Amino acid sequence: MATIHRITGAEITTPRAARFRDLDAVRAGLSTLPPADEAARAKAVGRETTLTKPAGALGRLEELAAWLAAWQGRHPPSIDNVRAIVFAANHGIASRGVSAYPAAVTAQMVANFERGGAAVNQLCEVVGANLSVIAIDLERATKDFLDAPAMSEEEFVAAIAVGHAAIDRSADLLCLGEMGIGNTTAAAAICNVLFGGRAETWTGPGTGVDGAARARKSAVVERAVARHINAVADGLDALRRLGGRELGAIAGAVLAARESRIPVVLDGFVSTAAAAALEACLPGALDHCVVGHVSAEPGHRLLVDRLRKTPLLALDMRLGEASGAVLAVPVLRGACACHAGMATFGEAAVAEKSI
Amino acid sequence: MATIHRITGAEITTPRAARFRDLDAVRAGLSTLPPADEAARAKAVGRETTLTKPAGALGRLEELAAWLAAWQGRHPPSIDNVRAIVFAANHGIASRGVSAYPAAVTAQMVANFERGGAAVNQLCEVVGANLSVIAIDLERATKDFLDAPAMSEEEFVAAIAVGHAAIDRSADLLCLGEMGIGNTTAAAAICNVLFGGRAETWTGPGTGVDGAARARKSAVVERAVARHINAVADGLDALRRLGGRELGAIAGAVLAARESRIPVVLDGFVSTAAAAALEACLPGALDHCVVGHVSAEPGHRLLVDRLRKTPLLALDMRLGEASGAVLAVPVLRGACACHAGMATFGEAAVAEKSI
Repeated sequence: MATIHRITGAEITTPRAARFRDLDAVRAGLSTLPPADEAARAKAVGRETTLTKPAGALGRLEELAAWLAAWQGRHPPSIDNVRAIVFAANHGIASRGVSAYPAAVTAQMVANFERGGAAVNQLCEVVGANLSVIAIDLERATKDFLDAPAMSEEEFVAAIAVGHAAIDRSADLLCLGEMGIGNTTAAAAICNVLFGGRAETWTGPGTGVDGAARARKSAVVERAVARHINAVADGLDALRRLGGRELGAIAGAVLAARESRIPVVLDGFVSTAAAAALEACLPGALDHCVVGHVSAEPGHRLLVDRLRKTPLLALDMRLGEASGAVLAVPVLRGACACHAGMATFGEAAVAEKSI
Repeated sequence: MATIHRITGAEITTPRAARFRDLDAVRAGLSTLPPADEAARAKAVGRETTLTKPAGALGRLEELAAWLAAWQGRHPPSIDNVRAIVFAANHGIASRGVSAYPAAVTAQMVANFERGGAAVNQLCEVVGANLSVIAIDLERATKDFLDAPAMSEEEFVAAIAVGHAAIDRSADLLCLGEMGIGNTTAAAAICNVLFGGRAETWTGPGTGVDGAARARKSAVVERAVARHINAVADGLDALRRLGGRELGAIAGAVLAARESRIPVVLDGFVSTAAAAALEACLPGALDHCVVGHVSAEPGHRLLVDRLRKTPLLALDMRLGEASGAVLAVPVLRGACACHAGMATFGEAAVAEKSI
C-alpha cells in the first residue's frame, strides 16, 4: 500500500511554499548546495582495497559504495529507510492528443496506487521501500504550453515547494518518480530546449503513441520549443514554461534531498528531465543522484548521456511511476552490504595478489 | 552464513554418482529434457495485457514473468525459495601462473564463505537467497590440461553428479556460481574450442592479470586448444578436457534444475561457459536459464552473444562466486510481483488506451 497525499490549490500556495519566496530564492538555494563528504568517500575507497576480492571485481558496486558514503556523509554508508515518492499532476498539453490515454487516467492511477494495484506498489514491496504518492491539484491542469507558460512563477515555486516539503530527513535513500498524462511531451520539450537537436529525436511513444499520433506529438514539441525558446531564462524557467507540477516537485525534492544528505535515485525520462533543469542551472547539482534505469523511451538514453550518467539498469521499461528507480534499489543495497559486511584479506586469512 | 559441504574424493564417486553411470548417460539425460510449459506461458502472456500499464511498459519484466511461468510450470509464477550454490574446485592449470592469486585461495575463500565474509554472503542476505557452497575435493586439483584432459570420464561424470545431487526440488529459483583459482583460463579454453576465434579474444584479466601475465595466460589457452581440439567429441567432452570439477557440477545442476522445473540464473564467464557446453550438445538446453549479469571479463560478452542471451544486469562486476546471478534475483522477484499483484484495468477502473 502507499501513503497518499492529495494537495489542492488552496494548500499548495500556503505554508508549504514558505521555503521559497520566489524563483530567485530557488536559484539561491541551488547556489548553496552542500558538497560531497570527501572524507567519507575516502574512507570508502580505502576500505574497498582491503576486502576479499580482486581489486575492482565488484565493478560499479564499489563506485556506488563510495558515492553513497560521499552523499550520505557517513562511513560506512547504509540503506535502512528507503523512500519512494511518486508526484502526480495534470497537463494542459494533454488536450492536444499527445497521449494514448485520456487525462482522467492520472487520477485513476493515483487511486490505483492507493489501493496497491500499480507496478510501483509491487516493486516497493519487493525491495522494501516506503511509497508515498503526492497528487498535486489534479483538478487543475497546468496551462497548455502551446498557448502560454505551463505555470506562473508563483505556481511553479509552489510545486517546487511541495516536492521540497515531501522529503523526510530520516530517509537514507530516495527514489523519485511521476504520473501525469502528457508528461513525456513536456519532458521532450524541456530536453529539446535544454540540449537542442530536433524535436523528433526527443519525442518517443510515451504511453504508446505511434504513426500519425507520434508525428503529432513531435510537432507539438517543435511548436512548443519555438514558442518559448527565446524567452527561456535558464533551466528552471524551462521547467516552469514546459513542465508540470510533478516535474517541479521532483526538482524541489532533489534539492531537499541534497540539503538533507539523502542520495537520490532518478527514474526514467520525465524524472530525469525535471532534474536536468537543475543541472542546466548549476553543473554538479545532480552529483547526489544516480539514474536507476534507462527507459525504453528513446529520449532518455540521449538525456542520460548529456548528463554523463550511467543508469544502473537497462530492462526496456518505460512505465514511469518510479518503477525503474525502485527496481534499482537492491543494487545499491548490495553495494552497501558488500562494502560494510565483507571480510578483509587480513580478517579472512586469504592470500593477497601474488603477481 | 552459508551451508558448506566439503566433498572428498572418496565420497565423490560413490552414491552421488549413481544418477549417471557414464558420460553417455549424461548425454541421454540431455536428450530427454522436459520442455517449457506452454500453457503456463500463455496464461502469463494473456494476463499481462490486462494489467494497469501501457502494453509492454514493463519491458523485460513482462518477458521474465512469462519465462518463469513456462519453466516453473505454473501460473502465476512465484519466487519464495531462492537457492544459490557456489561450487568450488582446484585446477591443475593454476600451476602455469595464469592467475594473480595462488591456488590456496580457493580453499581460503571457501572458509571465507563459511564465515560469511565474502561478497556473495552479503548479496544473498540482501536478496533473500539461501547460500550453499560445495567444495569438491579441493585437495586434488584436476590435471594440467596442457598435459592431459583435466578429468577422466569417471571423474567428470562424478563432478556432474555432485552438481545434479545438489539441487533441492523445493527451490523455485536457482543461482549458480563458482570459485576456483585458474578457472577463467579453463572457461576461455572451453569457449575457444566451442566457438572458435582467437585465444586472446577469449582470454581476459580474470582475477587481475595484465601485461606479460595476461599474454602468458592467452598462450596457455592457445596451446590447450591446439592440444585438445581435434579430439573433442562434443560440448561435454570439451568440458571434461578443459574444465574443472566446479564447471562439471554447474552443468549437472543446470540439468537437474530443468528436470525439477527450477529456472536458473547463471552468473559470469565461468558459469556460463560450463552451461554453454550443454547448449553445444543440444540447442535449447539452456532455455530454462537466464544470464544474471554480463561480466567485465571480456569473453563473457562474446559468450552471451553466441548463446543469444541478454544478461539482466551490466554492472562491470567480475568476481564470480554467483555474485552477479544473486544480484539479479530482485529483477525476477519484481517481474513475479508485478505480474501477480498488479490490478487489471477492470479491477482498478482505469481507462484503457484511447488512440
